[in-house]
Amino acid sequence: MVILARPQLGENIGMVARAMLNCGLQELRLVSPRDGWPNEMATATASGAVAVLERARLYESLAEATADLRCVYATSTRPRDLAKRVVEPREAAMRARAAIAQGEGVGLLFGPEKSGLSNEDLALADAVVSVPLNPAFSSLNLAQAVLILGYEWFLSGREAVPGHLVRNGAPRASKAEMDNFCGRLEAALDKAGFLYPPEKRPNMVSNLRALFGRMDLTDPEVKTLHGIVSALSAIGEKTRGS
Amino acid sequence: MVILARPQLGENIGMVARAMLNCGLQELRLVSPRDGWPNEMATATASGAVAVLERARLYESLAEATADLRCVYATSTRPRDLAKRVVEPREAAMRARAAIAQGEGVGLLFGPEKSGLSNEDLALADAVVSVPLNPAFSSLNLAQAVLILGYEWFLSGREAVPGHLVRNGAPRASKAEMDNFCGRLEAALDKAGFLYPPEKRPNMVSNLRALFGRMDLTDPEVKTLHGIVSALSAIGEKTRGS
Repeated sequence: MVILARPQLGENIGMVARAMLNCGLQELRLVSPRDGWPNEMATATASGAVAVLERARLYESLAEATADLRCVYATSTRPRDLAKRVVEPREAAMRARAAIAQGEGVGLLFGPEKSGLSNEDLALADAVVSVPLNPAFSSLNLAQAVLILGYEWFLSGREAVPGHLVRNGAPRASKAEMDNFCGRLEAALDKAGFLYPPEKRPNMVSNLRALFGRMDLTDPEVKTLHGIVSALSAIGEKTRGS
Repeated sequence: MVILARPQLGENIGMVARAMLNCGLQELRLVSPRDGWPNEMATATASGAVAVLERARLYESLAEATADLRCVYATSTRPRDLAKRVVEPREAAMRARAAIAQGEGVGLLFGPEKSGLSNEDLALADAVVSVPLNPAFSSLNLAQAVLILGYEWFLSGREAVPGHLVRNGAPRASKAEMDNFCGRLEAALDKAGFLYPPEKRPNMVSNLRALFGRMDLTDPEVKTLHGIVSALSAIGEKTRGS
């Protein structure tokens, strides 16, 4: 869950709600929001994520907001006067998942927009989360900080998905179709005198097959290529015939 | 570098510049920004990242903006009508680093706020980057999308930093100091009759040493603990004396 300590602008609370919902986080706790609660500006900027705001719980102090939690991660620029464990968002997300799996309540704590978390706030946290960014320009707004922590949280909760090809239902062409197309292309190129001289032909053919093979073609795409070969061949026929 | 195709709001261009600089990205290309260029609203929202805007290059078409690049990653919700390779931001960042290491120019392409990239735009891209988020609520604003891709880009370019303790210059207490403190505490507890009965003493002492060892104490913190033991012992002395 996300805990906002003394947030100032309603707009930002609404945008935090959006970023939370983007990342599958739905529990929000608010500690003494400056402009009261509920807040019209928050509702306005939350748009699709109003439900997160409607379910938000209000607290008067951070101690109350964290009383039932076993583990609190605080986002902050590096703590100046406290010896605190500092982790990055990825590690925090993995640790939070592990804690939750053990039945422990976990909170991600964010401070007020201007001042950030006080040392008194930080003393309540188990660790500080520091987002690795350009050291010369590392300030994020509230919703962006929530988004990056939430993004790592979302990633940590699912199986890794390797890169893949979206084919929109069109299946990858079978090896037979690929072989058929390549054979047909080679025949056309033989006819055109392109695969010449003969001693280089095997290598040229292999290179072409590697090239088309790499394209991960779908059935309709192979059909298109057949059409292209036909069309180009027809130009040649016409030229030759003229 | 980041390429914005037909961006609509100047505010968003400025916030993109901020997100870029957060992530160490400084080259921005703009293709036909709707409200012209330069744009006052962009300058207003870029605040600390105005230099990114000042160095931005303007193009009339996406083809011109990508002509010198070897590799273009397009962010989009999944492409509907095109067979395109889809990767996640982490994989895209690693591939982009590898391409750049080989001297290839790489662009991260983002579409207009409302409509996103057209199929014509996507045809110019080598792959589509899809940010893994809550499938029921996955829309990000432009600067947020740039931030997440940029964050992964930044991470991919540096050594992993494991979690660590920030001690603000105070060194971790030496084993001798820890042993000295624990010995002193045990002596006080012996005096108080706490480490009793004798057959349980070794185990109680081990548990206490494990507890204080886990705290990763700094020198000043050990001093503080010494002070606490002294202070508490003094109460006992007083009580006994009274």
